[in-house]
Amino acid sequence: MIPIEPKIFLVGAGPGDPDLLTVKAVALLRAADLILYDDLVPPPVLALAGPQTMVVNVGKRCGTKKITQLEINRRMIAAARRGMRVIRLKSGDPGVFGRLAEELDALEAAGIPFEVVPGITAGMAAAASLRVSLTDRRKSSRILIVSGHQAQENRRAEKTDWKALAGEDTTLIIYMPGRDLSAFSHELLEAGLSGAIPAVVVSCTCTPQQREWCTTLADLPAVSRTDAPTILLIGPSLARASQRADSDHRTPEPEEDLTSLLQLIGAAPPTLSLSEGPNRRIAR
Amino acid sequence: MIPIEPKIFLVGAGPGDPDLLTVKAVALLRAADLILYDDLVPPPVLALAGPQTMVVNVGKRCGTKKITQLEINRRMIAAARRGMRVIRLKSGDPGVFGRLAEELDALEAAGIPFEVVPGITAGMAAAASLRVSLTDRRKSSRILIVSGHQAQENRRAEKTDWKALAGEDTTLIIYMPGRDLSAFSHELLEAGLSGAIPAVVVSCTCTPQQREWCTTLADLPAVSRTDAPTILLIGPSLARASQRADSDHRTPEPEEDLTSLLQLIGAAPPTLSLSEGPNRRIAR
Repeated sequence: MIPIEPKIFLVGAGPGDPDLLTVKAVALLRAADLILYDDLVPPPVLALAGPQTMVVNVGKRCGTKKITQLEINRRMIAAARRGMRVIRLKSGDPGVFGRLAEELDALEAAGIPFEVVPGITAGMAAAASLRVSLTDRRKSSRILIVSGHQAQENRRAEKTDWKALAGEDTTLIIYMPGRDLSAFSHELLEAGLSGAIPAVVVSCTCTPQQREWCTTLADLPAVSRTDAPTILLIGPSLARASQRADSDHRTPEPEEDLTSLLQLIGAAPPTLSLSEGPNRRIAR
Repeated sequence: MIPIEPKIFLVGAGPGDPDLLTVKAVALLRAADLILYDDLVPPPVLALAGPQTMVVNVGKRCGTKKITQLEINRRMIAAARRGMRVIRLKSGDPGVFGRLAEELDALEAAGIPFEVVPGITAGMAAAASLRVSLTDRRKSSRILIVSGHQAQENRRAEKTDWKALAGEDTTLIIYMPGRDLSAFSHELLEAGLSGAIPAVVVSCTCTPQQREWCTTLADLPAVSRTDAPTILLIGPSLARASQRADSDHRTPEPEEDLTSLLQLIGAAPPTLSLSEGPNRRIAR
């Protein structure tokens, strides 16, 4: 019926807002036989799956069962070999801290055809939601993207030379910085960065639950009780967000309704409602 | 008719392939009164504009007339004040080397409401098209994004400490590296990186004209005659692309047809054909 080859599509689900999915991702989700998705992909995105689609959570942090990477690889390959149209759905962009490399190794070893479909990565979506630019030719000439987990490992090995890495003309984006932000603050101050450099923590980016904390590098340790997932952005180009927060304490604007946007571009609304859709079909 | 507020939307057009636009971008393009677009946004994306939309090239490299940033700001603001729904359409993600900060300054000074809609940035799209991951927890723990133009300025000022910046566990993405890639090769080798590190040049990412050169840091100077725009990716996570290029000299897969993908998600095909659409309406 739908002209999609029997191959595996490793697809970026974007930051959470279904309006920020790509046209291609929406088409693939609707046509899939099987979607294997990570924990961070929210229900409104999964609701775009077709009525025939089996939607399976393979999040490694899900509930009681811990699914290993090997098991995810095994399931993808087995389904593709049965001729199913398989989507491996990863939050954000699949190539950014998504363990994509390990899955590609497995698919190449098994000789399964595959395609990678990029998605909006959370750090860039967070910046857009803050209405800031990540670069600014007057003061921010580069972007450095790291993960909190990796930073912690490097910290133990004393491998991260923040002084060279995070000059004051850098916008630093830290994915999953964890709850204790004081280590980042401490290390960056020690590396010589000014305590006045703007720092913004964004939790639950591009979902109705998004929250923002606009602060400075020096005051970062005071930010706590954030809801995961969070993104930490540090750099002079974030000043705009802090200035606005000071002036108006704005609350995030209400999300546009997905159905109305899909109608705007001429698409039928999703065939399943959120309450009966993915839940009914979710397996573990 | 269409419920979009009279404000300015600064929208990411993604890397070039209209299938990689977000759902939100497509909806906004169809509903706009005026689209001010940069040179790098290709005709198939502009063809999604509504029949009522005025589509204007404000690319700073376009033809005979050089449009200044001040003039772009002035046009945006004047149109918004006349109550038009204005889209400022930027290739890739608006917050990455797009001079967004200067436009936001102007909009804030003028008191015009605005929203930023993220797009897939060219470097991440290039990696997906190469079917590689930008990070790999076994060997690539961070991503550094720089622009060739900025690197050149820093080179003159001797500001870039590549040794610290581009460790061998970094994936380096250089936007607009220019035609002479030997300076990057030379500097990175001098900083101690191995000449065997994979380097890939991608030109015209995610368009039917995409071409790829898979090489190494040492052999990078031999890559020439690339068509702008190009992206240069350097790092161990690119090894997969080089290995495949060695084994099969593959050509890029044909692009899916936009109309068929929009039909897949239930949308009507664009109302204007590419040949008569944007050209007829393009003003300078």
